[in-house]
Amino acid sequence: MSSLDSALQQVDHNSDAAISRLFDLLKIKSISTDPEFSDECIKGADWLVAELESLGITASRRDTAGHPMVIGHSDKVEGRPHVLFYGHYDVQPVDPLDLWHRQPFDPIIEQTSEGDVIRARGAADDKGQLMTFIEACRAWKEVEGTLPVNVTFLFEGEEESGSPSLVPFLEANKDELSVDLALVCDTGMWDKNTPAICTMLRGMLGEEITITAADKDLHSGMYGGPAANPIRILSKILADLHDDKGRVTIKDFYEGVDPLPPQVKAQWDSLNFNESEFLGAVDLSVNAGEQGFTALEQICSRPTCEINGIDGGYTGEGFKTVLPAKASAKISFRLVGKQDPFKIRENFRAYVRNQLPVDCSVEFEDHGASPATTMSIANKAFENTRKVLSEEWPQDAVYAGCGGSIPVVGYFEELLDMESLLVGFGLDDDQIHSPNEKYSLQSFQKGTRSWVRILHTLANS
Amino acid sequence: MSSLDSALQQVDHNSDAAISRLFDLLKIKSISTDPEFSDECIKGADWLVAELESLGITASRRDTAGHPMVIGHSDKVEGRPHVLFYGHYDVQPVDPLDLWHRQPFDPIIEQTSEGDVIRARGAADDKGQLMTFIEACRAWKEVEGTLPVNVTFLFEGEEESGSPSLVPFLEANKDELSVDLALVCDTGMWDKNTPAICTMLRGMLGEEITITAADKDLHSGMYGGPAANPIRILSKILADLHDDKGRVTIKDFYEGVDPLPPQVKAQWDSLNFNESEFLGAVDLSVNAGEQGFTALEQICSRPTCEINGIDGGYTGEGFKTVLPAKASAKISFRLVGKQDPFKIRENFRAYVRNQLPVDCSVEFEDHGASPATTMSIANKAFENTRKVLSEEWPQDAVYAGCGGSIPVVGYFEELLDMESLLVGFGLDDDQIHSPNEKYSLQSFQKGTRSWVRILHTLANS
Repeated sequence: MSSLDSALQQVDHNSDAAISRLFDLLKIKSISTDPEFSDECIKGADWLVAELESLGITASRRDTAGHPMVIGHSDKVEGRPHVLFYGHYDVQPVDPLDLWHRQPFDPIIEQTSEGDVIRARGAADDKGQLMTFIEACRAWKEVEGTLPVNVTFLFEGEEESGSPSLVPFLEANKDELSVDLALVCDTGMWDKNTPAICTMLRGMLGEEITITAADKDLHSGMYGGPAANPIRILSKILADLHDDKGRVTIKDFYEGVDPLPPQVKAQWDSLNFNESEFLGAVDLSVNAGEQGFTALEQICSRPTCEINGIDGGYTGEGFKTVLPAKASAKISFRLVGKQDPFKIRENFRAYVRNQLPVDCSVEFEDHGASPATTMSIANKAFENTRKVLSEEWPQDAVYAGCGGSIPVVGYFEELLDMESLLVGFGLDDDQIHSPNEKYSLQSFQKGTRSWVRILHTLANS
Repeated sequence: MSSLDSALQQVDHNSDAAISRLFDLLKIKSISTDPEFSDECIKGADWLVAELESLGITASRRDTAGHPMVIGHSDKVEGRPHVLFYGHYDVQPVDPLDLWHRQPFDPIIEQTSEGDVIRARGAADDKGQLMTFIEACRAWKEVEGTLPVNVTFLFEGEEESGSPSLVPFLEANKDELSVDLALVCDTGMWDKNTPAICTMLRGMLGEEITITAADKDLHSGMYGGPAANPIRILSKILADLHDDKGRVTIKDFYEGVDPLPPQVKAQWDSLNFNESEFLGAVDLSVNAGEQGFTALEQICSRPTCEINGIDGGYTGEGFKTVLPAKASAKISFRLVGKQDPFKIRENFRAYVRNQLPVDCSVEFEDHGASPATTMSIANKAFENTRKVLSEEWPQDAVYAGCGGSIPVVGYFEELLDMESLLVGFGLDDDQIHSPNEKYSLQSFQKGTRSWVRILHTLANS
């Protein structure tokens, strides 16, 4: 039996123990965006250090101004390629909790019409995904005593809260972290039978605005009319962010957005992306986005502006005729091509200030800014990975754009001069960032086997 | 000494004990809008029953589908006028709690530059006000052994939550409650030296709308663009509720709104209402209401539409790139003249449905509907009351419109064929419905004395 086949067999042999290890990690409530869960983030980091050490990896928790990083290094063998694997151990908040069918941090295997799934917050984003890589390393270690390539591990605990410590950390540890190629697992499959390598990521700009009018909440019977209402002002500002064709109205917003090259459009059209099915999966039927583009184009090649949260006045049970002093909204922009997030932030803030009536003030909170990234596929690791993924899964692997944003990929390029290979096994219906998040058991098991194959091919790339 | 003077002296003599009794009532957390506080509402009702009984009033708690009513009857003396006194023992919610300088249900007397105030939730709205009447009755009882007029007491526990049980209760107890005149104390002074009798109340329509797009919260990286965003749709609907002159755009909204009669406008102008001071008190400088009207006209004679609360998506600490399934808003309309709240509800709902894109649905929740009321001042009780108020206070009492809504006044008229005399001692800066609610100690003390005088004059009206 070849060493590859032995390692693949070892993955299957380890299956139950691997699920049990993943469950241990999923039980840790590492919500990074809420300070109440800081200790749980530390617990998550410590768990990963111990896990890496159990594989013979030299690992340590590296504290930052925010949640800690985890760094691990395999014993270096000269002459082998050196890769850095990136994942994050923090997760999204769980609200609205009442929409979960079970406790978010009490993982379980559930049988569904689509096959078995692992149900828990973080199952797909990103704990299940990062464990596919660790389990692949375990299989290699167990059968060969060593990994096929030199591996540095980098696990972050602030991915879901704008990664405030990431850039300073990369800058301070440039020599330690800059290797031949980064592997990033925070992406998805094309569909449940077709693996994908992500070759384009949208950037993101996160902004929060709070509009204040009077210096206190007022009684709408007494002040309703003459006093400015910040919810009304905020609504107007948000309503005017798009024109009636679904285009963003902020000055110079589309600067740096190139038309899709005809050959890429042709490739995408050949993928037979089923827009009705995509929308139908969430009970929608009509594309509500920018006119003149398919959903696939909108997600992979067009920028967007979304309101992610809004809050003002009385929102509890019943009714209260308050005229509130403040109202606020969280807004995110997904960016493509050469759009400059800092320039867009400036123009967005100018737009808000210009819309503001007398007596009203606005506060801005910055929730991160990163440009879009396009991967070059010239590196032969890409094509070799595509080939071995095609061996593992029923359908051949594809290169695809990805609507999400993974700022770390841009930082690796800028700060560490390091390309990234993005492979992940999430599915569109994993409900990441939503109640009842899940990860397909097949994704976990065949994902682990996929990394076994990728590590093997990287040794020869 | 006349019996009136004795009774007034008795009020002053009782002063400390009266404050202590009011504090006991203010300590009860009778927030009617939140089911968590149901037991506190029952406690409030029971407290009032005991209080009335201590005055020799036959009193009882009368349970309803919601929070209980309290009814009391003085011993009936034939040949005397019979009045019904209405007040409410429930209070507004206390959020945002962090803006209170002390616990809302821990009353205290505070010295301020404007004189001593009683600080607590409900101090002005309506516990302090209703206790002025009870203390006036106590003084009469203590000096004369009887009240100058026959009095029925009606205390409600759902005024701050749309009074769902009120109409059924009035209908079921029509014979018991229909008397010569209602006295309602839920109103304010013209200014701190000038008492007022309210002769016009705005009506109110409360509506809550919830817009749903996808069947679950989505990840904005994956679905942002093609999927409809309910916050964006809600913002547009709310933004379009007013035109650029501050007028409400709902069909036929201004039907039944008459221009202000020139003589009323002249009287109002003579009151020298200081608009800059009124707005300046809450840190505003410019009238943001319907163009072409003064603030006083807007508050007393024009209808309004206010957004009282808005909620959707992620509103916690930090950031979450969710594309929410739902967004909702609470909206209230203040109504004047002959505006029909039910017709306006219908047209508002049609407006919302018309604005709704494909794939989106809306749910409406009804939070009450009552028309505006205009009091006739032909009843000589009005002019007599104005005279005795003028004797108690530094400035002569005035007749004034009131921007708030007291639906019970309309119900008394419609269902019990009973006029209402509205007298109260609240001040514009009492911060009712807001953090740090207060009631001027002078309002409490001179308010009690005022009712002593009013009861006396009503006996002779």
